[in-house]
Amino acid sequence: MTHKGYVRRRQSHQVRVDSVSIGGGAQVSVQSMTNTDTRDVESTLRQISELVAAGAHLVRVAVPDAEASRTLEQIVRHSPVPVIADIHFDHRLALMAISAGAAKIRINPGNFRSEHLDELVRAASEAGIPMRIGVNAGSLPGETVRELGVTADAMVQTAIRYIEMVQSSGFDQIVLSAKASDVPLTVEANEELARLTAYPIHLGITEAGTGRRAEIKSAVGIGHLLGRGIGDTIRVSLTGDPVREVEVARAILATWGLAPSGVNLVSCPTCGRCRVDMETIASEVGRRLKDVEGDLTVAVMGCEVNGPGEARHADVGLACGQGTGVVMRGGEIKRKVDEKDMVDELMREVHRHLQENPPEKCKDM
Amino acid sequence: MTHKGYVRRRQSHQVRVDSVSIGGGAQVSVQSMTNTDTRDVESTLRQISELVAAGAHLVRVAVPDAEASRTLEQIVRHSPVPVIADIHFDHRLALMAISAGAAKIRINPGNFRSEHLDELVRAASEAGIPMRIGVNAGSLPGETVRELGVTADAMVQTAIRYIEMVQSSGFDQIVLSAKASDVPLTVEANEELARLTAYPIHLGITEAGTGRRAEIKSAVGIGHLLGRGIGDTIRVSLTGDPVREVEVARAILATWGLAPSGVNLVSCPTCGRCRVDMETIASEVGRRLKDVEGDLTVAVMGCEVNGPGEARHADVGLACGQGTGVVMRGGEIKRKVDEKDMVDELMREVHRHLQENPPEKCKDM
Repeated sequence: MTHKGYVRRRQSHQVRVDSVSIGGGAQVSVQSMTNTDTRDVESTLRQISELVAAGAHLVRVAVPDAEASRTLEQIVRHSPVPVIADIHFDHRLALMAISAGAAKIRINPGNFRSEHLDELVRAASEAGIPMRIGVNAGSLPGETVRELGVTADAMVQTAIRYIEMVQSSGFDQIVLSAKASDVPLTVEANEELARLTAYPIHLGITEAGTGRRAEIKSAVGIGHLLGRGIGDTIRVSLTGDPVREVEVARAILATWGLAPSGVNLVSCPTCGRCRVDMETIASEVGRRLKDVEGDLTVAVMGCEVNGPGEARHADVGLACGQGTGVVMRGGEIKRKVDEKDMVDELMREVHRHLQENPPEKCKDM
Repeated sequence: MTHKGYVRRRQSHQVRVDSVSIGGGAQVSVQSMTNTDTRDVESTLRQISELVAAGAHLVRVAVPDAEASRTLEQIVRHSPVPVIADIHFDHRLALMAISAGAAKIRINPGNFRSEHLDELVRAASEAGIPMRIGVNAGSLPGETVRELGVTADAMVQTAIRYIEMVQSSGFDQIVLSAKASDVPLTVEANEELARLTAYPIHLGITEAGTGRRAEIKSAVGIGHLLGRGIGDTIRVSLTGDPVREVEVARAILATWGLAPSGVNLVSCPTCGRCRVDMETIASEVGRRLKDVEGDLTVAVMGCEVNGPGEARHADVGLACGQGTGVVMRGGEIKRKVDEKDMVDELMREVHRHLQENPPEKCKDM
């Protein structure tokens, strides 16, 4: 029971970040950012590998000084995915990052002096790479904040002013972002940007914080905009291991059918109606499904209310009753099982399903 | 930096579930469901207390048999919040639950025989309690599925048919829900229901599954509809301890400014620019903030890009640089601090802020 046609994506220009396209109907790409010291090539490349293994299509690295712009060259050379250079304050670092082979440059209008923009645009244009104009509510230009406060309007006007300057140099390889740690503010700014321009949009809730609350905040904010068709590449920002950012990003995309769902476990919350140890069964199934590759939905249901329906519509399902259950595959009852055999029998049918429907390789890029 | 005016809530009728109003501009209420055996009064009441402590405004219990409908009476009498009876298959259980004092009844059109609806509506009307017509994609009526498949249209038509039958008896104390484990399907069905009727809507993604992925799915689905103004009461469905359902529900509401935010920690994901041990600092601040009560935003930021801006706009903030940082309160720099003193000094300002802005009591209901 999947339903992938809901999201009607906004039409946007397409830019290419080396092998990855952003916008213009391309798959929504997942990106993350290393939190290693960029001057430490080995650690940075190791973290990039972890991010790619988790499903990142693009990785951004901070380039805070000249030494980092030099190590960037080696990072770019050995990274399995395109590397984006994140630049603040100093346009010379941006020029060095382009020379070092960055596949895309991110600048922040809040701290990038506009008199250097022409020079940077020329360099990006010659290198054939796009530029993200990345506005953050936490670093808007001082005069804009004094005039408009920290508002969606201030974020949008800051972006538009830079877009116009960049466009006036004949450059259109632009990606936009407008991030805040506040979700309504981020949503309002992005809806307005989406209305005013046709450039691809990079989504994120910035400085979301730590733990579960940060994940939920990101899922609500990024998920809402994606549901409205807005967003061409996404980055979840969480304090901690950036691998978690990629996992959360992919789960958000899968929820809307914008990325392969992988293994989707549907399991009921259980209630006073449940007569089997559902939580143990569902957790054990979840654990065993971790190593399974492929797109499939597995339903593990505790009672006769939604059990038969969900189990029938899943690829493989288990619907429990009074200490026993039925295992289904492809909508058909395969056998009755006792509680102790439920997980084994369900997994047997999962593997049968995968034999008959082998996972496509490299479907993901 | 909060921005609570984004969501324009759909106008809906209001129903009263004992002390809690649903719809008509009332605060979006959080509900959960016990997974204890309803016949075990003590365990069920203990779980209800845990759910209420976590922030549930309403609790639902399954009433799968006559014995459960008898114990329901004691549960209702001792519960600190209104108790909703969840009924499937047997209309006599619904009648018994009403006699037992349930504050609201939930029926499922997929398994409730319509010839008993008049009798049930009369009993609910006499008891002065509302009824939820709760449609699930996993338990739609067989003939509807044969005609329309498991679609948003099938879910909406099933709800509308029951609404019309209930209305024809002059009853309008109706709450609606249309849930699926698939987010786009749930969203489409609820958008259509919101367009077609003015009854309050109960939101949920049913059988979301286990672990982080289930939380993200719920946050995206429920969060998206709330962002579009749809939803008067919400229930997050997760396999496991239902307390987690309440925590996730409250985090979703707080993200949109639809519930008190409590303590909001803004912390940066760190990058190659960061020269302090941000993850340790942010985690330690998160831990110490756990026991803090009140609505406040605390920013913990790793560098000079967004640090000063976020820290200035937070109630209390820390912006780090090269091994040192500044602590801010109310937008003003209070002092420079070394890395080892950062957490202590930040917490000192948090407590000063709370002394000057004491948390309101009982603001929540």
